[in-house]
This record gives sequence, C-alpha cells and structure tokens, in this order.
Amino acid sequence: MYRIENDLLGDLEVPVDVYYGIQTQRAIDNFNISGIKLYQFPEFIKALAYVKWAAAETNFELGLLDEKLKTAIVAAAKEVVEGKFDKEFPVDMIQGGAGTSTNMNINEVLANRALELMGYQKGDYQYCSPNDHVNLSQSTNDAYPTAIKLGIINSKAVLIQHLSPLIDSFRKKGVEFKNVLKMGRTQLQDAVPMTLGQEFEAFAANLEEEIERLTQNSNLFLEINMGATAIGTGINAAPGYAKLCAENLKKITGLAFVSAPNLIEATPDTGSYVIYSSALKRMAIKISKICNDLRLLSSGPRCGFNEINLPAMQPGSSIMPGKVNPVIPEVMNQICYRVIGNDLTVTMAAEAGQLQLNVMEPVLTFSILESMQLLINGMDTLRMKCIDGITANVEHCYEMVINSIGIVTALNPYIGYKNSTKIAKEALETGRSVYHLVLEHNILTKEQLDDILNPENMLAPKNVV
Amino acid sequence: MYRIENDLLGDLEVPVDVYYGIQTQRAIDNFNISGIKLYQFPEFIKALAYVKWAAAETNFELGLLDEKLKTAIVAAAKEVVEGKFDKEFPVDMIQGGAGTSTNMNINEVLANRALELMGYQKGDYQYCSPNDHVNLSQSTNDAYPTAIKLGIINSKAVLIQHLSPLIDSFRKKGVEFKNVLKMGRTQLQDAVPMTLGQEFEAFAANLEEEIERLTQNSNLFLEINMGATAIGTGINAAPGYAKLCAENLKKITGLAFVSAPNLIEATPDTGSYVIYSSALKRMAIKISKICNDLRLLSSGPRCGFNEINLPAMQPGSSIMPGKVNPVIPEVMNQICYRVIGNDLTVTMAAEAGQLQLNVMEPVLTFSILESMQLLINGMDTLRMKCIDGITANVEHCYEMVINSIGIVTALNPYIGYKNSTKIAKEALETGRSVYHLVLEHNILTKEQLDDILNPENMLAPKNVV
Amino acid sequence: MYRIENDLLGDLEVPVDVYYGIQTQRAIDNFNISGIKLYQFPEFIKALAYVKWAAAETNFELGLLDEKLKTAIVAAAKEVVEGKFDKEFPVDMIQGGAGTSTNMNINEVLANRALELMGYQKGDYQYCSPNDHVNLSQSTNDAYPTAIKLGIINSKAVLIQHLSPLIDSFRKKGVEFKNVLKMGRTQLQDAVPMTLGQEFEAFAANLEEEIERLTQNSNLFLEINMGATAIGTGINAAPGYAKLCAENLKKITGLAFVSAPNLIEATPDTGSYVIYSSALKRMAIKISKICNDLRLLSSGPRCGFNEINLPAMQPGSSIMPGKVNPVIPEVMNQICYRVIGNDLTVTMAAEAGQLQLNVMEPVLTFSILESMQLLINGMDTLRMKCIDGITANVEHCYEMVINSIGIVTALNPYIGYKNSTKIAKEALETGRSVYHLVLEHNILTKEQLDDILNPENMLAPKNVV
Amino acid sequence: MYRIENDLLGDLEVPVDVYYGIQTQRAIDNFNISGIKLYQFPEFIKALAYVKWAAAETNFELGLLDEKLKTAIVAAAKEVVEGKFDKEFPVDMIQGGAGTSTNMNINEVLANRALELMGYQKGDYQYCSPNDHVNLSQSTNDAYPTAIKLGIINSKAVLIQHLSPLIDSFRKKGVEFKNVLKMGRTQLQDAVPMTLGQEFEAFAANLEEEIERLTQNSNLFLEINMGATAIGTGINAAPGYAKLCAENLKKITGLAFVSAPNLIEATPDTGSYVIYSSALKRMAIKISKICNDLRLLSSGPRCGFNEINLPAMQPGSSIMPGKVNPVIPEVMNQICYRVIGNDLTVTMAAEAGQLQLNVMEPVLTFSILESMQLLINGMDTLRMKCIDGITANVEHCYEMVINSIGIVTALNPYIGYKNSTKIAKEALETGRSVYHLVLEHNILTKEQLDDILNPENMLAPKNVV
Repeated sequence: MYRIENDLLGDLEVPVDVYYGIQTQRAIDNFNISGIKLYQFPEFIKALAYVKWAAAETNFELGLLDEKLKTAIVAAAKEVVEGKFDKEFPVDMIQGGAGTSTNMNINEVLANRALELMGYQKGDYQYCSPNDHVNLSQSTNDAYPTAIKLGIINSKAVLIQHLSPLIDSFRKKGVEFKNVLKMGRTQLQDAVPMTLGQEFEAFAANLEEEIERLTQNSNLFLEINMGATAIGTGINAAPGYAKLCAENLKKITGLAFVSAPNLIEATPDTGSYVIYSSALKRMAIKISKICNDLRLLSSGPRCGFNEINLPAMQPGSSIMPGKVNPVIPEVMNQICYRVIGNDLTVTMAAEAGQLQLNVMEPVLTFSILESMQLLINGMDTLRMKCIDGITANVEHCYEMVINSIGIVTALNPYIGYKNSTKIAKEALETGRSVYHLVLEHNILTKEQLDDILNPENMLAPKNVV
Repeated sequence: MYRIENDLLGDLEVPVDVYYGIQTQRAIDNFNISGIKLYQFPEFIKALAYVKWAAAETNFELGLLDEKLKTAIVAAAKEVVEGKFDKEFPVDMIQGGAGTSTNMNINEVLANRALELMGYQKGDYQYCSPNDHVNLSQSTNDAYPTAIKLGIINSKAVLIQHLSPLIDSFRKKGVEFKNVLKMGRTQLQDAVPMTLGQEFEAFAANLEEEIERLTQNSNLFLEINMGATAIGTGINAAPGYAKLCAENLKKITGLAFVSAPNLIEATPDTGSYVIYSSALKRMAIKISKICNDLRLLSSGPRCGFNEINLPAMQPGSSIMPGKVNPVIPEVMNQICYRVIGNDLTVTMAAEAGQLQLNVMEPVLTFSILESMQLLINGMDTLRMKCIDGITANVEHCYEMVINSIGIVTALNPYIGYKNSTKIAKEALETGRSVYHLVLEHNILTKEQLDDILNPENMLAPKNVV
Repeated sequence: MYRIENDLLGDLEVPVDVYYGIQTQRAIDNFNISGIKLYQFPEFIKALAYVKWAAAETNFELGLLDEKLKTAIVAAAKEVVEGKFDKEFPVDMIQGGAGTSTNMNINEVLANRALELMGYQKGDYQYCSPNDHVNLSQSTNDAYPTAIKLGIINSKAVLIQHLSPLIDSFRKKGVEFKNVLKMGRTQLQDAVPMTLGQEFEAFAANLEEEIERLTQNSNLFLEINMGATAIGTGINAAPGYAKLCAENLKKITGLAFVSAPNLIEATPDTGSYVIYSSALKRMAIKISKICNDLRLLSSGPRCGFNEINLPAMQPGSSIMPGKVNPVIPEVMNQICYRVIGNDLTVTMAAEAGQLQLNVMEPVLTFSILESMQLLINGMDTLRMKCIDGITANVEHCYEMVINSIGIVTALNPYIGYKNSTKIAKEALETGRSVYHLVLEHNILTKEQLDDILNPENMLAPKNVV
Repeated sequence: MYRIENDLLGDLEVPVDVYYGIQTQRAIDNFNISGIKLYQFPEFIKALAYVKWAAAETNFELGLLDEKLKTAIVAAAKEVVEGKFDKEFPVDMIQGGAGTSTNMNINEVLANRALELMGYQKGDYQYCSPNDHVNLSQSTNDAYPTAIKLGIINSKAVLIQHLSPLIDSFRKKGVEFKNVLKMGRTQLQDAVPMTLGQEFEAFAANLEEEIERLTQNSNLFLEINMGATAIGTGINAAPGYAKLCAENLKKITGLAFVSAPNLIEATPDTGSYVIYSSALKRMAIKISKICNDLRLLSSGPRCGFNEINLPAMQPGSSIMPGKVNPVIPEVMNQICYRVIGNDLTVTMAAEAGQLQLNVMEPVLTFSILESMQLLINGMDTLRMKCIDGITANVEHCYEMVINSIGIVTALNPYIGYKNSTKIAKEALETGRSVYHLVLEHNILTKEQLDDILNPENMLAPKNVV
C-alpha cells in the first residue's frame, strides 16, 4: 500500500504507513552505499529532533509559525527524542547532497507525525509542510551541522561514561600493585626500578587527561550556525532568529549553545570536526600504546617479560595447546587503527569543502560517530575482559630488578658517570652483579651500598648523603 | 536449549542447534566490537570452506585422515560454499587472536556438520574434532591468511564485474560527445580546445588501467602458506603437505595458487595486503578525481562552467527551490575518502606485525573487504544514477571556445611564443577576440587564420605549413 | 687537528676547536639521514640552552652545583641562546637514541664553553663534565622533551606572527570588496547572493580562530617533566628538584611552565605533540580549502567563474602564451599536503612509544618544526604575492547574480517552496529570468518583486512583510 | 652584474653569468618554501636534460629544428647529464605552476649553454630560445612529468643498489645463525622452536621481494606523454612526434619508454606515482617491522628477550651508565614513518588533480624522491652500523626453548590437542617442564619423547611414526 507524493522531480510512491516522505524515499533509492543507516546512531536522531524543536519554538516566538502548528511539531519532536520513531530514519549514513536527505527525513517525519497529532492524514502537507513549516527559517546547511554537533556532544558524554570506569580500573590495579617492584625500561632496554603500581597508575593518569581534552574540543561544537540558512547570509530568516534559536536550543538541551559570530564563516567550516576527530585519534594512540605495553609486559610465559598475566579469554591457538594470547588488547589495538583511519577520512572530507559549503559532512559525521562507538565497545571489553583480571608475577619481577645492571645508575651521584660506566661494562661482560663488583673494587662500603642499591630507594627523588 | 562444550578454559553452554561450537561462542561473548559479522562477507565464508576442503583432501592423500572423515568434511565444506550455513558465522569482523576465532568457527561448523552427515550428534567431537580433524596439519596462522587471500581474490573478481560497466558507461559518453567542442583547462585556467568526447574517453581509459592493476596486485595473494602451521617451520605437518595443499586448493578453486618459497617469511608477512589496499586506494583516488571533475563541469547552471548536466536525483535543497545538486558524485567522493582512510588502517595494522605473526589481520581484512564493497556499491550508483544520464550543453561549450584566449596557442608555430603572448595580453586587457586582434595587426592573412584558429584543427597533432 | 675524547665505547678524535665532544661526534658519524641539522631550527637550539640554564640554577639552589660552575654553565647557555654557537649543533634531526645525541650535544657544548670561561681547555671534563655537571639531575628523557616543548611554544609564537598579517590581508580585502555583489555557491551550484567582501571576511574569520586554537593546544606543552630523570621516578634527582626547576624555567623564559603531576606518566607521553600537530593539520586544512576557493573564483579568464584576478607572478605556461596561473595558492596547497603528511608521521611516531619512553621523539619533533616552517614561508608568500594584489571583476560578478535562478529562494516566504520550485524549473528549462516569469504569472506585483528580488536585500536576515 | 631579460610580466634582472634566465629568476623570487632545491636531486636534473635531448633529436628528425641548433642543444644537455651545471637549478622543490618553473629552468639553462656553444652571448634568445627551440613541440605538461618518471626510475635503480647489500647482510646472518635454536613467538607469546638463522633468512627473503615489487611498479613510469603538449591533444606537435620522441628517449636512456596510448588520459594522471609511492610505503612497513623485531630480540640485557646483541654505536644514556640502546633500528623506524607520511602527501596531491592537469606534481615528486633518499641513507646505516655486527646469545636462546611450554605442540599428532592442552596447563600452573610431566603421566615412553621433544626435530615438517 502506497501513497503518492510529489516534488521537483515528479511523483513517487511512498509506503502508506511510514512517517517519512518522498525525499526520504528518494534517498533510500539513491543511496545504497554502506548499509549503515541513520537509525544506528540514535543520539544523532535525537539531535535532529532537538534542532527542529528549537527552530519551531523560535519561529513561533517570532510570529512566523502559529501556535497549533508549533505545538504539533514540538510534540512530534519530543516523540522522536524519546526514540519512538527510530525506524523511520532508514537513510544510509553515507549520502550525497550535504545532508539534505537527512534534513528532509526529519522534516518529513515531524510533518507527518504533526499532521496526525492535528487530526490530519499523513501527506496532507498543506496543513503542515516539511519545507514550509518544519524547515521554516532553516536550510540543510544550518540545521544539519547543528544536529551533528549536538549529536557528537551527547555521544561524547556517553564515551566519557565508558572511559571513566576504564581509568578507575587501571587505577585500582595501580593500588593493588603498589608494592610490586619491577624494572623500568626505556628503548626496550633495562633502565631503573619502579613499581608495577606506578606503571598502572600512569596508564590511569594518561587516560584521565582525555576527559578534559575531549570535553574542551567538543566545546567547539557549541558554536552553531542556525539562522545561516543557505550560505550564512540568513536569507529567509528573520532578524534575531539566529541568536534566539541558539538560546532555545540551549534551553531545551541544557547545553551552552551560542550563535557563531560570523555565520558565513561558520557554515562551510569543519574545523571543529577536524580537531575533535584528532582528539579521538589522540585517545586512540594512547590506548594503543597502553595495549602494546600490556602485550609486552605479559609476553612469555617463559621466553618473554612475563611480569603480568592477562586473564585467558579463549584458547590461544588452534594448534598450540595451552597457549593463551592477549586477545583483548589485540582487539583494542585494531579499534585504534580504525579510529586513526577514520581520522584520515575526516581530514580528506574536511579539505574537500568548497566555497559556501562542505558537502562531505555525511562521511565526516559517520566516521566520527563510528569511531566513538568502536571506542566505547572496545573500552568496555578491555576493562571487563582484561584489566580487571590482571595479576602480577611478583617474584619474577623482583628477581629481574635484583639481577639487573640498570641499578648502577643510582651510583652516579656517589662515584660519577664515568666510574659507574666501568662497573656496568664489567657486569655486562662478566655476567656478574653490580653489587658484588662495587664491593670487590672497594668503591663503597657495604653499608653505603646496601642503602644506595636498595631498589626501594630508587623509586623517588632522594638526597645524596 | 543448550549443549555443554569444553576447552582449555572450562565448560560453556552453546545453543543446542547451532553448528558452531565453544570457541565460536567465546568469540561471540568476547568480541562485541563493530557489529559487522563474518557472514556479511559471504565470499570470505566461502573461502574459509575452500581452504578446509583443500586441507582435508591433502590430509587424506597423505594418509593422515581416513576416507570417511575426509568425505564428510568435504561434503560439509561444499555446503558452506553453497551458502547454506552463512548464519553460523556470527563472529565480529574485528577480533583479537589473529583470526583464531574465525578459524575455529569454520572448524567447528564443519566438524558438527560432518558429524551429522556421518550420523552423529553435534558435539560428538571424538568422531570428528574441530582441532584434530578439520584443522589437521593446520594452524590459524596458515589457514586463516590463506582464506583471506582467496576471499579477496574472489571479491576482486566481483569488483571488476562492477567496474567494467562503469568504464563502458564513460566510453559510451565518449562516443556520444565526440563532436562536442569544448575548452580544455589546466590549473583551472582556460587552456586549449578539446572535445567532451575526448574527456569522457579519457575517464574510461583512466579507469580501464585499474583492471590490470588490481589483477596484478591481487595475484600476489596466490602465494599461500598452507603447511606453515604455527610459525612457518611446518611443525605437525607432514613433508610434502605444503605443496600438495596448494595444488589441491588450485584444483578446487581454479586459481593458480602456489606454496610460498619461504614459509617462515610468508607467515607474518602482510606485504600483499598492503599493496593490494594501495591499489584500491589508487582506484579511489582516480574515481574521486573524476567525480571532482564531473562536479566542476556541471557547476552552474548559470554561474559556473555549465558544460554538462547530471541527471537530477533529488530536489537539491530544503531551502533553495529548483536547485539540483551533483549528489551522486558527492557520495562517490565520500566513499573514496573512506577507502583512503581504510588504507591507513591497513598500513597501521601491517606495521604492527611482530616476530612470527601479524595479529592485526582481522582489521586489515575487514578494511579491505569493506573498501571493495563500498566501491562496488558506489560504482553501480555512479553509473546508473549519474553517468548514463549525463547530457552536454553543446552550444555553451562551443561559445566558450570561440571566445577564449587560449586558442592563441595555435599561433606559436607561426609567429613564435613571444608574439603570441603579446596578442594574448592585448586580448585579456581589451576583452577582444584573438581572431580580430591578429587580423588587425596584419600578422597573418584571413585565410591562414581561419585555418589555424579553427578549433577543430587544434584537437590533434598537425604539421605546420 | 684533533683532540681525543673517551666514553663507554672507547676513544675518538674530535676536531680540536669545536665545542661539541665525543658523543656529538659519534652522532655525526652514526646519523647521516636527512641532511637537515639541528642548527636549522634555532628556536630549538635556544630551547635546549634555556633548559640547561634552568637545571644549573636549580642544582645550584639545591646545593648540588657550586657557584663557579653554575655561573660558567649559565653564561655559556646565554651565549647559545644568543645564537653564538649555532654551528656547533650539526647532528641530524632524525636520529636514534630518543634524543640522547641532541642532549649530549648541548651538554658538551656548554661544558666546553664553560671550561673556557673558567680558564680551562676544551675537554678538561674533570672541571666541568657534560654528564656530571651540565646534565646533573637530568636525563635525556626529561631535558630533551622539555626543550622540544619550549622550542615548539616559541616557534608557535613566530608562526602566529606570520599568520596574523595574513588574516589582516584577507580582512582588508573583505572591506575593499564589501560592495561587490556576487553569487554564493553550495555544492558548486549557484545558490543565493552574497558579497565578495563577505567571502573574504569569512576567510579572515576562519583563520583567526587558529590563533586561539594553536595557543590553547600549545599550552599543553607547559607541563614539563624536568626531575623525572630516566623514567619518571626521579632517581638521582633531589627532592624538590622537579618543581623548582619548572619554576626556574618559568622565570627565565617568562612562560608558565609547571611540573607534571605524574612524572612517570609524563615521561613517555606524546599526547601534547599529537594534538598540537593536529592543530597544525587543522590550520593546513583550512588554508588549503581557502586556496582551493581562490583557484575556483579566479578560474577563467573566459571559461570559468572569473570573479577575481590573482596577481600574475610568472608566465603561466611554457606553451600557452598569455596564460596566467594561480601559482601561489597552488604552492600553498602543496605545503598543506605536506603538513598533513607530517601529521601522519607524528601519529605513527606517537603510537610507537613503548613502556617508559617514546624513542621516536626526534622524527616527531622534526615533523612538527618542519610543518611550522613551511607554513610560515607559505603564509608570507600567499599574503605578499597573492592576497594583497587580488582584484575583483565587479561587473561580471553582478551580471551572474542578476541572471541567476538562485534568487528565486527569496520568494519562499511569499509564495511557498512548491511555487518557487515551479518558477525555478521553468526558468531553467526556458532560459528566461525569474523576474520576468513571476511577473508573467501574476504571482506578485512589480513593486513587491522589485523589493524581494533586489539582490542587496538578500544579504542579511529580513522580515517578511 | 646583471643582464635584463623580458617576459609576459615585464623586465627582470638576472645575474649576468648564470645560465638560467628570467623565469627561473622569478621562481627563485616566488618560491622560498622548503629550502630544498632541485639540485639536491641530481638524478632528476639529469632526467630533465635527457628529455630535452630526446625532444631536440625528435624535432630535428621531423625537420622542425635545424641541425646546428639541435647539435648545440644536445651538447648542452649532455653537459647537464654529466653534472656540470647542477648549481644552475636553484628552484625550490615545492613550487606552484605544475612544474613550469622547473621546465623553464632546464629550457633556459640549455638555451643559454647552447647559445654559448654556438658562439653567442647568454640571453641572445633570437638564436636559441628557451620556448621556441628548447621547448619546441613540448609543454611543461608533457616534458615535466616525463622527466619525473625518468628521474624516479633511475633513483629506483640506486635504491635497489643499496637495498641489495642489506638483503645480503641479513642473509649472511641467516647462515651464521643457522644452528642457533630459539623460541618462535606469535602474539608475543612463546610458540614453537625455530632457529635464529631461519628468522634472519626470513628478513632477507621478505625484503628481497621488494626488488621485484619496486621494479614492477616503477615500470609503469615507462609510459610517457611526450607529444601531449598542453592537454594531451598534441596541439603544436607534429604528427608522429609522440611515438618518435618516446623512441628517442628509449634510445638515449636504454629504458623501454613507450608513448601512452591515450595522451589526454595520460597527461593529468598520477596513478603511477600513487602506486610507486605505495610500493615505497610497503617497503617501509616491512623494514619498520624488521626493526621492531630487532629491538624486541635485543631487549634486555637481563630483563628482556636478550636473544641477540646489536653493536653499540654510542653510550645509550646521559644518565644510565653502561646502557646500550638500539639506536640504529630506532632511526630506521623513524625514516619509515616519514616515508609513510610522505605517501599520504602523495595521496592528497594525486587526489587534487583537476580536469586536464595535476598541478600538485612538484610536492608529489619531492615526497617520492625524499622518501627514496631517506631509505637509501637508512638502509646503509642499518646494514653497516647494525646488521653486520649482530651477535647471538646462543646459550640463552637454547635454554629458553628447553624450558618452554610451547614444545608441547609437537605432541598433538601423538596424543591429540586436548591431552596436550592438559599437559600445557599443568606445566604452566606448576612451573614444571613438559618433558617431565609427560613422563610422569606415562603418556609416552622416554624414547618416543626424546625424539618428539627434541627441538631440532621441530624445525621442519615431519612424518608421524
């Protein structure tokens, strides 16, 4: 069963009971690209509805939309926010037209739902038109990027909700391992002692910075271009609309939106996407480095560093019995490479903006939203299936420190770099311990040495006495 | 309803009627990452089955597997090739473990189906074990990459099936437009005349090269490492297994597989993926450039180049009535940026290989297969919804040529570069035509000029007379 | 003439009159890589000297260095800051060893110069040793990244000094062109009118944001890890050294340095480089987009947009007389691609950090410093050789607007989107003007129309009357 | 002392004794960008001269250039090939104008040198003009890319000359270490035994493939577009010129150049650069992976894998005495990241081609040539300062194998995967050896076990008996 709708290109059948209309239908027909649909990113659908809601309120306050229409559109928008119509957004995330299809999708759904709420039939657009009423005072070129920005800000909040427990998980291990003495390594070479707790606390501290970094960079999305209409000149928008609409969006969402000071600049600009995607890349680089470290530290069990044990999640090999592999850090690494690849897609898309618009916003949006979703999934997996269950090989860690040459570093302040170097060289060549060599050469007394070469005295700054 | 299975980590419930087993179940539980499952790439599932089939034949021929088991495993593999068990491969494309989960998924499905065919129950692994029989003489580290390679080769064949008609479509337009005279442009500046047909034929010729390029680079995948087992030393494989298995896979698939000359080198090596992904990137760059050109040539309708018209696929704007946008080239550009981003993911994943294995193969495989699928979808869309319907603005193209300054170039061989420059400069400053200026300055006779400045004489090499 | 110096590896000849020593000499011998030397980045050399100066002051204040030595080292450092010893830093920018060679280069130069200032010979290291005195309480792993950070902050200040006049240059053109009416374009299709002044002011506004963005991101470099020594535990540093050294560096440079709250986290972390490089990439993307626009707007002269003229900097073609090409925006685009490529190098280098250190810092530093230098050179070139000399084709711009279909957009609020669409369609098909069609169809009076379709009324929001 | 030259833009002073002319001078003035000059890539300068030589011969054979001029131009070109005029090419590698400055630089140098050889003064262009004679039948758009292609082909030959000894060096170590038994590792976990010789031979084999890969991909450069002139239509070239010129270039250089079948397609196409740069990236990825492995294998000396020792090239630390770091692999890794970054620059530049030309060729060329030079320098350094001096820790390697659990894999064919798994698990939990556990459980006789668990029997395929 179909209803017939009409646009610039002519008539088209639309399934009779759907809320979307002819332009959504054209988009479904035109863009069979990635198989990933708008409805797979519900935060983005919500954001589209919020933007239309704010626009309707603003149009009403400026006397451009009557109360009945406004009420119906807002009611419809609230239902979309509640997730009632998610399946009405079946357009491919990768689409041409700079988001026109997405903007028309929300315009059509809201118009048809508003029509119903006002007692009309779907498609009776003379009473509530997707273009003339829902899209009033707007263009795809302002409503669409504003919704993207809101959608990313809200997705970022979710992201942080999944990042924070991961940080906590590392921190708890930092406490648990605070007395596990181990060798620090630089350039993969034995360096000087530290504790395993210091190492895990550093992972926590390293990721904790990302909360502020993501937030600071996502704050750039608070500057929106509602009222820009087609190219930023504000054609067909009323004076005052831009600022008022930003205020209304702020009121509705509780987020501190402001109108961009120069709407012509703001409309084609994708700078905020670029730096936010970079912030995601930065986080991915950090997490990837941490996962690389976890895999190094758990290498073994007998021919590697073998300092920690990751929980076994699956038999490690189809041929090597008993092998347990670091599969969770491995999957996280791969997510990170994907996030980094997506950042390049964003870079290419951003650079391709031309004149008064960037038409590549859909792939740019998709890439950022996908990266966030992958990171969310990955961080939960990493925390629950790996970090929380890590155990330390305390004795082995300790033995490595005691037998190391690196502890010779602590002698520098007492005997100088050159003399320490000689001891180190002899230890390396003979396979003997630093401790015995120093004693043998009568360089320091046993008492001094016991104090200086006690690894626990090497974990923090210390006065030379 | 569940059955209980058991492995190194203990017992686990598996739905009673599924063909996969405990290790697939663990992978489902462990890897909730991208939402994209193995079954979304049926060419890859087929390839896994072909590899197991070849291994079973080889084991049988070497006397390692009895006929009954071989027959059952091969029958099961054929069913998988026919697509009967696609839904039994629900593991996430992005997974840790270097593909162990994927390898065990096919091992388990084949073992359970073979059990059924032999009259046993699913799970009666003493009669046909995923590890000891289906995976016999193999490791994930040889079977998995071999299947990836086969899967990509076959997907490449599909890709070319969708590329070829696109080339034809450009070529037909080349013929259709062979008499449409237009201005060529370099550095976006008016250069010298050409025909629109030459331009479209060049698009065809440009993409046609990719057929050979993709094929040449995918041929590197014909070198496989079956028989390498865990790390390439061939532990637990019989002498002769490697070569024989490659021959069997060749026989079964009709593709010219050979055993890699050095299996230890071949096992962790991802060089073939890197260069094949680069070939996809190269194609993406070319298609993106062509789409950029189509958007330039159709810019307007009144304030741009306006040489061609793309078919209107949707109303172009939610605010600007009558606007028709180049939405199909735009979506193709975005696909290309995604392919380029995926190539970076492949780069990162390839560089992360360590020692005797590259554990990042899953994301590498996913990125390549996704890129191919996106290109297939995009090229069909581009051809059917854009190229086939392009029309030329013949008169406008002609007028631009006649009024251009660029035709002065044809005077070089007669009056030299310096004199031609003077005419060009005067034309630019006065807004007058080159033709009239040359006449006015009595540089050449009208007859000479009519011949030299006839744009149709500028479309090919010509002797100076 | 050589002097002989000695280290862990044995003796080596060093030219007798150079200030650097054996380890610099080894680095010269070992790293013949890029041909780009430390001295090509004088801000970085200065930064190295400042860091050593701060360390010497701190050691003195903590009673670890006597006054004579401190005074000599500080005096030597001041001379390096003044640029007196630039040629003493001949080590390749790309080097192994995580910067040890660079750190030893400055240690050796300062030690030898301090020796001279104290009346000793170069090489008399018992009186002032590169390791025991100049490097006292330090490691490469804290001193080197601190110097990089200071070097980038100061280079960023220079970058902004070259960015600001470029912004001004765009802004001046914005004022100059404020009455030049022209067609705005979205998706390369004619959209609605704007002024050329608005377009250039938007370029200015777009780049102006980068000042804050670069500054905000470079502020992350203010967190330093002096006192971390080898791995962040502070071994061989005195209690209090870290904070005091940060304060001293702040005092000496006037920049608000603070000691990182977690030195173990801070030591291997390259997050600040990643996001700063991303900020450079963001700026490059913006500038590249602007240059693409300039090339589009100046396309022609007769077969393109032809709205503006770029100053002719060279004859455009070796074969096409009179051709003038947009060579300056073209070179700027290429710089931007290089900056984007460098950002990928930074990404790879950052991800490669392992355990307690990132050994890839040299290439990371080189890439960032090179990007800044390229941008500085490019922006000066762009401003002086292009933007400042741009002129507008006022009449041609105006005619395009008047003849456009896009102005139909202004009718929406009066006759609705659907009716406007019909007019637009008829205009496109018949080649006639919107103005005449509206009149002919008696949709609006001539008076109304004259007001609504006056392009100057379309440049800003407007109430519907 | 200056001479005055003149072009489209007016007069300009050129130093009196230089061979370049006004357009080179403008380029020097316009492009102060990277500080890297054409003359830093002598293979490229040679290639420019070869192309002009071939063009002159062709013009002569077609009767377009008289013998005297031809002889003089060819003589001048030969001198350039011999390197006599390198310093006459001071233009920045990064330049706008799609290479026009570079093309005019060689045109001017050859014209002026030819003038001298014919007894005229520099600048007497009426007797031999850069445009009318040296550039006859050519455009920048054909001569410049042809020279790039020739320049890269020849540089590739040099690259392989430096790659081959590196391969040999790995191979020699493969032989030297052929009896050093060690543990293979997958996913950083102990896997099964191999020899260190196998590992180094695999490095050799892995890199050896690159010789063919580089050659195959550089062969695409053999297709040239001489005769295309401005846009590929061949305007101002004589019929037959294209093919004849390719033949002449083939004759002169000994390389199998052919004329592209479609010159309009060939002129803007940068596909060959893209895939060749990808081949360089592929090689960089491989070398980077090998260097990562070398750093892992030499980790220690007491808390790491410690299987091999890299030669000490410098004291490793400014604070940790006796530390020796893998500085050479580290510098090679950094080179590889740079090559990968350059490949992205090439990608961006290639995608930016528009219509009948790609104006970004200069940065594309620079990036490729720089990558090759870096790889050449790096590979020499890696070979001479690292690989050649590597030694093995034979005993330690052997002990790790004997104590490993991984050898349990060899039991699979005898006792099945499940039973082997039990042994492995018990070994892991108890810390005991596989050998003793198997004996204790009476699973196999001592004789059987001695044969099966003899690591030397695990290095190759083997029949189960």
